[in-house]
Amino acid sequence: MRTNNPDASLPIGIFDSGVGGLTVLAALRARLAREYYIYLGDTARLPYGTKSKDTIVRYSVQATAKLVERRIKLLVVACNTATAAALPDLQKKFAPLPVIGVVEPGARAACKAVAHKREDCRILVLATESTINGAAYTRAIQALLPQAQVTGVSCSLLVPMAEEGWMTGPIVESVIRRYLEPLLGEKTQGAAALRPDCIVLGCTHFPPLAASIAAVAGKEARIIDSAVTTAEVVQKELQKLHLLRPEEAPEKATPGIANDIPSELAYRPDNPTRRLRLLTTDAPERFARIGSLFLNLRIAPKEVELVAL
Amino acid sequence: MRTNNPDASLPIGIFDSGVGGLTVLAALRARLAREYYIYLGDTARLPYGTKSKDTIVRYSVQATAKLVERRIKLLVVACNTATAAALPDLQKKFAPLPVIGVVEPGARAACKAVAHKREDCRILVLATESTINGAAYTRAIQALLPQAQVTGVSCSLLVPMAEEGWMTGPIVESVIRRYLEPLLGEKTQGAAALRPDCIVLGCTHFPPLAASIAAVAGKEARIIDSAVTTAEVVQKELQKLHLLRPEEAPEKATPGIANDIPSELAYRPDNPTRRLRLLTTDAPERFARIGSLFLNLRIAPKEVELVAL
Repeated sequence: MRTNNPDASLPIGIFDSGVGGLTVLAALRARLAREYYIYLGDTARLPYGTKSKDTIVRYSVQATAKLVERRIKLLVVACNTATAAALPDLQKKFAPLPVIGVVEPGARAACKAVAHKREDCRILVLATESTINGAAYTRAIQALLPQAQVTGVSCSLLVPMAEEGWMTGPIVESVIRRYLEPLLGEKTQGAAALRPDCIVLGCTHFPPLAASIAAVAGKEARIIDSAVTTAEVVQKELQKLHLLRPEEAPEKATPGIANDIPSELAYRPDNPTRRLRLLTTDAPERFARIGSLFLNLRIAPKEVELVAL
Repeated sequence: MRTNNPDASLPIGIFDSGVGGLTVLAALRARLAREYYIYLGDTARLPYGTKSKDTIVRYSVQATAKLVERRIKLLVVACNTATAAALPDLQKKFAPLPVIGVVEPGARAACKAVAHKREDCRILVLATESTINGAAYTRAIQALLPQAQVTGVSCSLLVPMAEEGWMTGPIVESVIRRYLEPLLGEKTQGAAALRPDCIVLGCTHFPPLAASIAAVAGKEARIIDSAVTTAEVVQKELQKLHLLRPEEAPEKATPGIANDIPSELAYRPDNPTRRLRLLTTDAPERFARIGSLFLNLRIAPKEVELVAL
């Protein structure tokens, strides 16, 4: 694909409340390896998931403005809470910038996963308190699949647990069980169990906990992570707008573009290509340490830029 | 005590990152029942404990300025993280306002608790990542008791767990055990156990977890909560400055002053005395719901005022 759109050379902006959105960045890098990325994690004010809609909208607008100031060609709201609370506001306020959230792609992936079931189709959504209260997933899923039975469970504590780097083990499973137990039923009592056909990870902090969630909820349920589907949507949108980076980009001059190239190259500040910029509103060292677990790539603290919102 | 200082009629300001500081407010109300209080919880940006010193100082200055704007006679920084990071800055910036933190009173209470031991005296401090990294408790304790062996353990996840209302039970104990286990040793291996003489709850979110902490750490250790000692220090400071409310205050016209009077009276917006004002920077409903657990008093959402910092 050839394009003369000068904006195609700009980076894709990604915004999250903290490091959770790095799971979306990882999916984007895997799919669109030639693109440049600028990621902002609002760690000075995280978590968003227990905050009010008004506050989440205000924080999201500030974060987007910061990325727009650096110039981006498209924004990914890589945070379910911010998507659920603020997506329409961001799309309106920053038009014509294309703004893509993670809820609709996640809902679409869930519907695809249960497409073989014509009736009695059960979808479980795990998310933060704010996302569940706003019911954005229920609306998005039922718009695509009206017969789906959607159950949302707020699991706010999984966010700081993942931020603490606790991804697996008996404690993590106990916490998940405590949130899910009322739904999963107890065999001894013969209570009706939920037995979901698929489980949507409705928070970008949850993918690293997927194995623990599967261990509790049962291996039968398909686990849906919106990161991959979001990357697909971003690719289609950039294609449609002729904003994909041109294929003739000089491969040799731009190291660090594929996952099999040493990642350090992509971050080094003295690397003129700067394919990946990481911004945070607080504690770059903590961002680097925990972020490495989410991005599945070593991040050095000096490669994270501190910004004020 | 009789005083003509007009400022004695002003309320005591209390500031915390969220609802944890309500444990300090409860201790103050129990000790200084005649006083008026204005409490600010910066829930829009909590938790502070995983944030950097610079950010904590900035947030603390903003919160204090908001309370000073409302007029207060003394400020209690009812947050260990904010005390450890920002107390000297606040004292300097807002002089001559007396500003009292919770770390020094907590350290003093711990030293008093182990005063009977002349040597091999072990103090365990549980606090947030930021408080432990800054080592404020170690310095404060060793200034009073140089021979004390102080061990600090960062237990960041206990904050959101308490905010979620999970105060007791097997999961809470598992999380505490995971943080403490390396220190408590394993009987089977005969490893040297820490066996603390006292455990300092170095975060105002931890007092509701005290029973679970005792269950894990052993009943022998004295559990120290800085709230009660902080209230003592506040009383002494107000006495010294002749700022205690005069005893001749008309008892009958000021309902809700003691813990045995129905609490609702103290909060009701149409109550002209307004002995207790609660401010929050986000989600008054959540503040009321979780805050009731910490204050041990029912708070109605409409009694919590939303403010911007």
